Amino acid sequence: MSFELTILGSNSALPTSNRYPTAQVLEVPGRCFLIDCGEGTQIQIRRNKISFAKIHHIFISHLHGDHFYGLIGLISTMNLMGIKHDLHIYAPSELKDLIQPQLNHIRGELTVKPIFHPLNFKKPQTIFEDKKLEVLSFPVKHSIPTCGFLFKEKQKSANIKKEMIKAYNIPIAKIKDIKVGADFITESGQTIPNIKLCTPAPKPTSYAFCTDTAFHPPTAEVIKGVSLLYHESTFLEKLKDLAEKTLHSTAKQAAEMANLCEAHKLIVGHFSARHKKTDDFVTEAKEIFENTEAAIEGKTYSF
Amino acid sequence: MSFELTILGSNSALPTSNRYPTAQVLEVPGRCFLIDCGEGTQIQIRRNKISFAKIHHIFISHLHGDHFYGLIGLISTMNLMGIKHDLHIYAPSELKDLIQPQLNHIRGELTVKPIFHPLNFKKPQTIFEDKKLEVLSFPVKHSIPTCGFLFKEKQKSANIKKEMIKAYNIPIAKIKDIKVGADFITESGQTIPNIKLCTPAPKPTSYAFCTDTAFHPPTAEVIKGVSLLYHESTFLEKLKDLAEKTLHSTAKQAAEMANLCEAHKLIVGHFSARHKKTDDFVTEAKEIFENTEAAIEGKTYSF
Repeated sequence: MSFELTILGSNSALPTSNRYPTAQVLEVPGRCFLIDCGEGTQIQIRRNKISFAKIHHIFISHLHGDHFYGLIGLISTMNLMGIKHDLHIYAPSELKDLIQPQLNHIRGELTVKPIFHPLNFKKPQTIFEDKKLEVLSFPVKHSIPTCGFLFKEKQKSANIKKEMIKAYNIPIAKIKDIKVGADFITESGQTIPNIKLCTPAPKPTSYAFCTDTAFHPPTAEVIKGVSLLYHESTFLEKLKDLAEKTLHSTAKQAAEMANLCEAHKLIVGHFSARHKKTDDFVTEAKEIFENTEAAIEGKTYSF
Repeated sequence: MSFELTILGSNSALPTSNRYPTAQVLEVPGRCFLIDCGEGTQIQIRRNKISFAKIHHIFISHLHGDHFYGLIGLISTMNLMGIKHDLHIYAPSELKDLIQPQLNHIRGELTVKPIFHPLNFKKPQTIFEDKKLEVLSFPVKHSIPTCGFLFKEKQKSANIKKEMIKAYNIPIAKIKDIKVGADFITESGQTIPNIKLCTPAPKPTSYAFCTDTAFHPPTAEVIKGVSLLYHESTFLEKLKDLAEKTLHSTAKQAAEMANLCEAHKLIVGHFSARHKKTDDFVTEAKEIFENTEAAIEGKTYSF
């Protein structure tokens, strides 16, 4: 399954003149997930020609303003557009109380129906699931309760080779078992190993979103082998002390996490407003983990 | 006194990819007033290199989201910057309840202290005053209680001509009266008319902000003779029915208001997202009121 990640905001708490606070859209076949929703997200959605009507699921990592202040404007706009669907919001439970007075104040009845799903900050949990995909939240390490999110395609069955069905006269009743790993025993008692019968299913695609967080090794176990890791790198290593104090990460630490979880690729983001350019973050991370890119607003990463 | 108006947002409720919702900054010597604060205002403030620390007074016309959703982000950022001052917010009284849960949620104690001043929607009232300037709110005609704002320099005294003081031997004790219009009677009983003694003070500069509103003639009386009128023109005349239904104005109506109040200049704004370009609004308004410009984001209008 192909994933497409579009960065809408790549900056940390203080916006700069050319970078927005955190927001990104992950598109998988048939689904469009919005992850975090800093101020200006709706403008970035429009600029990137993403359909508001496709957004049914929003994931809010934590309740620092740069990760959710754009939510009320987005819902208000979806409402003005007459979009009618349930809008599932996975977020810290307090979000509802923070936003409800403003939701109540929107003119007329809401056509979009926000449904709040509280996150669990004690352990990883499945928060969304359909036939093809699963979304997990998992606690990270920040100054307030914060979750990362893992979007992972479900493991598909292997494909049985048509010519093998013919060659060994495999009955239909046996195919299901073979697809999930069984060998086949012919009428004459010969065992045909599964590896000969099947083409293995491709490795499931997955995406992990980790911000805001200090370097936190337990995360690696949850997101092991992830296709693409987005990890915050608010600071460069020269400001490691500040990163530690504020429970953020440096670019080097983001790269260490990519190594630890054996990610295929790393995107660093959530840049401090101190840095006008993002080149230094990538340079620093690449010393540890070569396959690194910076989060660039408006860019779509396909994987 | 010179006024400088910078447009930060010129669009109506639905933002477009290149226009923000309503916000503008009016700078007068020693003061920086923020008028309305739609989503993204803090980003526009930064882009336009306006100092956050200079903003002590914010005026919110009404409680449709496109006029106040940027307020919490702005306050949060001022707080992160460690700005310490009272922030006077002139707004409908309900704003406090809408925003207070989020203010309470900001980490640590607020360094910026929001002070809410409720607006009066029944009649014009002075809401701010210092030695040089006065700000009035006045009700306009919209679907919810909405105020316009008039910023007006106070009338200065005339300047007495130095050569007249010498020529007629005018004692210091008389000068104050002469500056505000008195004639002077010489020792020999001759009356010297005020007009001969003084250079008249320049006409006070003033700025009127009128959005969101239907065409509403009573407004003209309040803002008579204004130097610059910003009047909404959400629609063009061909959508007059829609303007009427939604209690907005057309460009033609904005121009009619400029005529009616004898404004020196008109800026039209609060454009519907239907229109990518703003030329048609200006063309339509200029047929009625020649000295018209469109509100262009990032542009500063000096007057």
